[in-house]
This record gives sequence, C-alpha cells and structure tokens, in this order.
Amino acid sequence: MKVGIIGVGTVGASVANILRDNKDIITERSGCEIEPAIGVVSNLNKKRDVTIELTDDIDAVLNDDSIDIIVELMGGIEKPYEIVKKALVKGKAVVTANKALLAYHRYELQDLAGDTPFEYEAAVAGGIPIINALRDGLTANHIQSIRGIMNGTCNYMLTKMINEGVDYDTILSESQELGYAEADPTFDVGGFDAAHKLLILGSIAYDIDAKPEDILIEGIQDIAPEDIDFANEFNYTIKLLTIAKKIDKKVELRVHPAFISKDEMIAKVDGVMNGVSVIGDKVGETMYYGAGAGGDATASAVIANIVDIARRGKGSPMLGFELDNSEDLTLMSKDEIQTKYYLRFRVEDKAGVLAKIATILGEQNISIEKMIQKPLNKTCANLLLATHTSLEKDVVDALKKIEQAGAVTAKPVMIRIED
Amino acid sequence: MKVGIIGVGTVGASVANILRDNKDIITERSGCEIEPAIGVVSNLNKKRDVTIELTDDIDAVLNDDSIDIIVELMGGIEKPYEIVKKALVKGKAVVTANKALLAYHRYELQDLAGDTPFEYEAAVAGGIPIINALRDGLTANHIQSIRGIMNGTCNYMLTKMINEGVDYDTILSESQELGYAEADPTFDVGGFDAAHKLLILGSIAYDIDAKPEDILIEGIQDIAPEDIDFANEFNYTIKLLTIAKKIDKKVELRVHPAFISKDEMIAKVDGVMNGVSVIGDKVGETMYYGAGAGGDATASAVIANIVDIARRGKGSPMLGFELDNSEDLTLMSKDEIQTKYYLRFRVEDKAGVLAKIATILGEQNISIEKMIQKPLNKTCANLLLATHTSLEKDVVDALKKIEQAGAVTAKPVMIRIED
Ligand SMILES: NC(=O)c1ccc[n+]([C@@H]2O[C@H](COP(=O)([O-])OP(=O)(O)OC[C@H]3O[C@@H](n4cnc5c(N)ncnc54)[C@H](OP(=O)(O)O)[C@@H]3O)[C@@H](O)[C@H]2O)c1
Ligand SMILES: NC(=O)c1ccc[n+]([C@@H]2O[C@H](COP(=O)([O-])OP(=O)(O)OC[C@H]3O[C@@H](n4cnc5c(N)ncnc54)[C@H](OP(=O)(O)O)[C@@H]3O)[C@@H](O)[C@H]2O)c1
Repeated sequence: MKVGIIGVGTVGASVANILRDNKDIITERSGCEIEPAIGVVSNLNKKRDVTIELTDDIDAVLNDDSIDIIVELMGGIEKPYEIVKKALVKGKAVVTANKALLAYHRYELQDLAGDTPFEYEAAVAGGIPIINALRDGLTANHIQSIRGIMNGTCNYMLTKMINEGVDYDTILSESQELGYAEADPTFDVGGFDAAHKLLILGSIAYDIDAKPEDILIEGIQDIAPEDIDFANEFNYTIKLLTIAKKIDKKVELRVHPAFISKDEMIAKVDGVMNGVSVIGDKVGETMYYGAGAGGDATASAVIANIVDIARRGKGSPMLGFELDNSEDLTLMSKDEIQTKYYLRFRVEDKAGVLAKIATILGEQNISIEKMIQKPLNKTCANLLLATHTSLEKDVVDALKKIEQAGAVTAKPVMIRIED
Repeated sequence: MKVGIIGVGTVGASVANILRDNKDIITERSGCEIEPAIGVVSNLNKKRDVTIELTDDIDAVLNDDSIDIIVELMGGIEKPYEIVKKALVKGKAVVTANKALLAYHRYELQDLAGDTPFEYEAAVAGGIPIINALRDGLTANHIQSIRGIMNGTCNYMLTKMINEGVDYDTILSESQELGYAEADPTFDVGGFDAAHKLLILGSIAYDIDAKPEDILIEGIQDIAPEDIDFANEFNYTIKLLTIAKKIDKKVELRVHPAFISKDEMIAKVDGVMNGVSVIGDKVGETMYYGAGAGGDATASAVIANIVDIARRGKGSPMLGFELDNSEDLTLMSKDEIQTKYYLRFRVEDKAGVLAKIATILGEQNISIEKMIQKPLNKTCANLLLATHTSLEKDVVDALKKIEQAGAVTAKPVMIRIED
C-alpha cells in the first residue's frame, strides 16, 4: 500500500517517520506493508528531518496510479479541497487532519467520497481516537450532549491563569515563546479552531450541516482574575468548552469559555491536554482524554486511519450516517440558548447602582442565584453574580440596557455556566 | 440483518430493547435494518420486560440460516465456547460480552473465526469503546503500558472506604444489597474479573497468549484503614489496577490493588465507573472513562459491534494482529516484577524489632523511602513503610523471613506503588 503525503511539515514529517520507525508493528497490524512513497512540500530547499522522497509537484503525486492513499497535511481550505477532490475522483482513499477543510466542505466531500474511504481522525482532538469512538463506538445511542476541551493553547493558558495566577497577556506571550500559540493567536484564543472541530462532531452526532459563521463562538480574551476568583469561590473551573447538545428537535452548537464544576471528570483536563465527554442515552457519560496536538500524537491518529483502510477497505460512512437523518434536527439559533450565566459589572460604588442593575435583570426575567461585590478602588467596585437558568437573548438584552442606562463604567462581561 | 441473542438476561434484554427503542438512529447509522429476531433463555416461564420472541432451543437458532449474527450473552465458559464455535463454523458473525470465554479461548476463537467478524467490545470495561481505541485507534504505536480500573464493584468499595472511611466488611454487605456485588463476591473482589479483561487487552497490545492462572492476581480483601491513612498522607489513592507493561522483550500482566498518585487522571475514576489509561510511544497517554457495567451501557458496546458488522462486513483482525507478532514478546514471570512497595507490619512495641525488620529488608536489597510508626494499643504498633523500586522476589522473600524471625504479630501486608 503506497501513501503519498501532501505536506511534510509538523504532522506530515511525523507520519513519514513513524511509518518508517514503527514499521514492524504497523505491518503486523495492517497485514501489509504501508510505504510512505512520496512527500510534497512547497520549498524543496528547506532542511528537514525526514528520509521520505520529496517533490513539489502535487499533480504528479495525484496522477501516480501506484499511490493508493493520499494523506493531506498541508493546511488551508480551498487548495486542499481541490487536491482532495481530485484524489477522490481518481478513486484514491484520502486521510486528512484538516479541520478547517472539514468545517467548510465535509458534506460535499462525503457526497463525493461515496464508498471510497475518507478518514479524518486527527482533525478532532489530535491523538485521541474520538471520531472512532463517537462514530463507531457509540452508534447504539442518541447522543444527548458532547462537551469538549479541544484547544490545547487555550487550555494551557487557562490552566496557568487559574493554577498560578498568571495574567492573560503574560501567559499569551509565554505560550507564543513556547510555540503553543501562533504569532496571530486569534484562531486559537478566539475559539475558531475549537469551533471547526465542534462542527465535525456535530455532524457525526446530529447530522447538522452548519458552518463556523452559523454558530456562537467566543474566545477567552476577556477572562480576568476576578472571574477566576469567583469561579474558585463556588467550586468551578473555567474551560474553553465546545458544546453540542440536543434539546427536542433542536441542536445547540457553541464554543465559549464556561464555568464547570471542579468535580466533573472533564474539569480535570489541564494544560495542553484535550478531553471530550459524550453523553449517550444508553451508555451514559464516556470521556476521552489525550494529546490534542503535536506532530507525533496527531500522526498517530493519521496512521490509525491508514491502517484501518489497509485492513478493512470500505470505511464507515464518513459522517456516520448511511441514510438520511430522519430526526429532522435543526440548528438552534443563538438567541434560544438557555443556560446559567456569570456576569461581571464594573460599577461606581454609590447608592442606587445595584438597584438599577437588579431592576433591569428582573425585567428581563433573569433571577440571581449568587452575588459578590468586591471593591476595586475608592470609587469603583466589581459586581459579580451568577444567574439561574435564563434565555441567552434576555441576558444579552439586559447587558445592553444596563450599559445604556449608564449603570456601569465598563462593558459588562458574561461567562456561561454549564452545570 | 437478523440477530439471534443467546441469553436474554441483564445485557441481552437491554440489547433487544435498545435495538427496538433506538431503531431510528441505529438503522440510519447501519444503512440497513437490524432485527432482533429471536432470543434464547433457559427458563421460558420467567417474567421479562422484553418484546423479542423467545425460545429455549439454542440449536434451532444456530441452525436458522436467516440469522446473520449470533450475540452470545449467556455467560459461562465451555457452553458458550461450543455455541460460538458452531456459529462460526456456520459462517455467522459473532458478538459477545463474555470476558471469561475470551480469557480462556480467545486464540482458538481467533483462528476459527478467520475472516468472519468476531467482536467483543463489551467484554472489557462495558460501555467504554476501549477495544475500538486500542485495536483500531492506536495502531501506529508500540504500547508502552496500559493501566485500567476495570472492576466497578472494587472501585465502588475502595472509593467508599477512602472517601467516607467505611470499613471493608460494611461496604461489602452494602454493595451486595445494592446489587453491585454478588453473594459470592470473590470473582470481583479477588481481582479475577479484572484479570479476564486484562488478558484480552494484553493480547491486543502485545499478542501475549496467557491464561488467568499464569499471571499475578490479588484482590482488595486485605486493605485496612491504616493503609488508606498512609496513602492519604503521601498524596496517593488506592485502586484495583490492571497493568500491562512492556519492558524490553518482556510483558508484565498483573492485577492488584495499587497506590497511585492522586494527580493522575486515572486516580479520578471513582465509584462504579471504569477508566483505562494507555501510553503509546507516539501518542503519549490517552485515557478512556465510562460505565463498565450495567445492562444498557454494556448493550451499547454490543450494538456498536453489530452496527460495525452491518456497515463494513470484514472486521479488524480479532486480536489486532494480521501477521505474527515478530517482536517475540514473552510474559514476564511474577518474580521479575520491579516496582515500589508499601509494607505494613504489625509489631510489638519494644526495642530491637525495627532493627530486625530493617536488617532483613537491607539484606534483601530493599531500601526504604518513607516510614511511619503508629501505636495500635499499649503493646502493639503498625510499622508502615514505602520502599524504593525493588524486585518482587526480594520483597516476597523478605516478608517471609520477617515472619519467620518472629518480628511481627500478624502476617505482613504489601501493596504495590505504581508511580
Ligand atoms: N500541528 C498539529 O499539532 C496539528 C494537530 C491537528 C491537526 N493539524 C492539522 O494538520 C495539518 C498540517 O498541520 P502542520 O502543523 O503539520 O502544518 P505545517 O507544519 O505548516 O506543514 C504544512 C506542510 O504543507 C506544505 N505545503 C503547504 N502549502 C503547500 C503547497 N501549496 N504546495 C506544496 N506543499 C505545501 C508545507 O511545505 P513547506 O514545508 O515547504 O513549507 C509543509 O510541509 C493542518 O490542516 C492542521 O490543521 C495539525
Ligand atoms: N451485567 C453486566 O453489567 C455485564 C457487563 C459486561 C459483560 N457482561 C457479560 O455479559 C454476559 C451476560 O451477562 P448478564 O449479566 O446479562 O447475565 P444474566 O443476567 O445472568 O443473563 C444470562 C442469560 O442467559 C440465559 N442462559 C444462561 N444459560 C443458558 C442456557 N444453558 N441455555 C439458554 N439460556 C441460558 C439466561 O436464561 P434465564 O433468563 O432463563 O435464566 C439469561 O437470560 C456475561 O458473559 C457477562 O460476563 C455483563
């Protein structure tokens, strides 16, 4: 079985090298030799720690009839989309780790692939075999919810902020120096990377064809020390959470920082590690934990797909459904979300301010479960509170009205509480 | 696709009922209808909460050419072995949750099955798709170690003993009343159930053909409050651990209570829940968590296998290897195990006793890392200590000598420490 690797960067180089270094065990498990035949890069002059033969001619690889499997590890969206389509049209099996590609084109690719294996285990939570678990291991279940910690950069930063009291800007620079965060960190800290992964899981669980722009995505940029103190006080931790949840015939898909109880298994997923908790109606909660990124860990998942194709040929249906989703589930609009909310108001420390805020919240049907007021300086205080379950639209409207009423000296901050 | 369910007890009834109740989603995922056509029980007069047609004639089901898949859920060893063999000879796919059967006959069954699908996801850790993960998700990796908490009864009992200070006998009776422990609890508390599961994982990771009698199996019966206190003092918890570990060309397989650091993910698996941590040379640690028993959770895994067979036909090789294990790994003998040990000695509180014990330990090359002496009453004390890494044989010999030397007033207790 000959493999062509398009993109021999962090992950691609690991795939080529592991296929060489662990050839013994991979051959035994596949029942045949898997040969990393050729790799494609854009710059042939770059020094690399690989022994695979390299080219910069993508089409030559796609047109080579001796290549059975195309492994796409170049990144991007439209260019890999063209490449993968060409490979499928030629009947070549495809393996990719490209979540951005799938966040936008998974349904077109599923249609095009038909019976040709198209696998993407590494695209979600890196080395953790979560696609395998959700698509093949939990098929007996209606999935009630999925909650994931699927961005290592954010989880590393939040863990440091919570456990060591480091502030956001300091830990962001440190993460950039360590190579955990990019020079432009928005894709990670803004929740977009996690959202791409969530959309893939959302399709497997619920057959929902949504794009990133359709769902609620918020990042971790506004989390301040006082939020962490409040969380600690009430036995919560803060995680960038990806949530997919079914309520009647509607599916919520959202990514945002969230308070979760420290007692939950998933609350214990710290540092760069990833974790995904899935609740099925029959199996209850199962949880999956491991490295969400890194060359070797990600390559582990890519190679699992290659071995599976070598062993079994015909794959599971790409997004898990062989027939149409008869449940007729639709995406819930952002306004309809119902959860609990933590709210932070920066207020002037004078009579009447609390009354103003409390009145507006009351008018919007938002009732308060816990509250703490903490002085910031001589004239200002932080008003921190947690609500009972409320409607997202009501909370958003209330915050707008509170700002307009001049009751606060800074934009209010809200963090959802997922009990 | 027609399914015959041999054994319609706790798990079998759940399989039949879920195939009926979740038929919508299961059909969509399988791409065909899966019909629970007939169930076999021994007593047709028993009242049951199922709608599947029942018979007590096993052979009629095995001889029915319209049945595609035999699901064996009756329990036992030799009787199901005969049934499963007959089914395979007739070319029927087989799914089982029977770990005892596999602990003894997995290699014969693998040979007999050949290309006929033979699946057993539910046999290890119930609803957690750990076979799927280990056999199909981590194929790129040399497995360095597996550590599992795979007996819910023991984990429930230990959690109660540690968190609530309940003593062993009390929690055992309570577990029996709750139905978590059998009238004869030996199979669970003695570690045998966990050992059956470990042997299956040991075959997938290392292709080791061992039987229960070949490996070290110890239960939780001797754990006393003072052991728990010592563990707490040094940030350990105590779990019944199944361990599979490769050291050079030798494989350790063992089941026993163990001290593990409270900071590990797996230490957080409490109550009846199961967890399995796997370390691969490329992916690092991954961990899997969920319900290890119960009708519905176990049936979730059984049905995952059925759906997989319906979707894809040809399975992965039953124990994960298509070709022979070329690493030539062999089972390590019990004597060769090396780990750290916690030791408890009940001693007379008088001069010379500690010297006697310390001398014997020293002679056996066992060095002490931590020690606590705690008075028990006017004349007796508990001497509790943790060793540095030592050879199992040295420790066993030392304990024998210490007993023979009359240095202790009760049989010494040892619990392995897995850092
Ligand atoms: N890194 C991770 O931990 C991780 C984890 C999960 C998923 N992923 C996904 O895996 C994919 C690859 O990530 P990566 O980190 O390995 O990326 P990377 O290190 O940037 O490597 C990209 C590779 O693709 C090559 N390439 C890019 N554009 C090309 C073009 N037009 N023609 C030919 N070659 C081209 C590059 O060539 P040069 O080397 O010559 O520049 C490089 O070898 C992405 O989709 C990413 O989202 C990565
Ligand atoms: N229970 C769990 O949570 C769990 C979890 C993982 C794996 N497992 C495994 O799953 C298997 C089934 O467990 P279970 O708890 O469902 O057992 P169970 O409740 O005792 O059910 C056994 C079923 O098999 C039938 N049966 C037994 N011997 C028979 C015979 N000779 N002929 C015809 N029918 C016979 C029984 O018939 P009657 O009803 O007429 O007595 C009963 O319906 C076991 O291998 C077990 O180790 C169980």
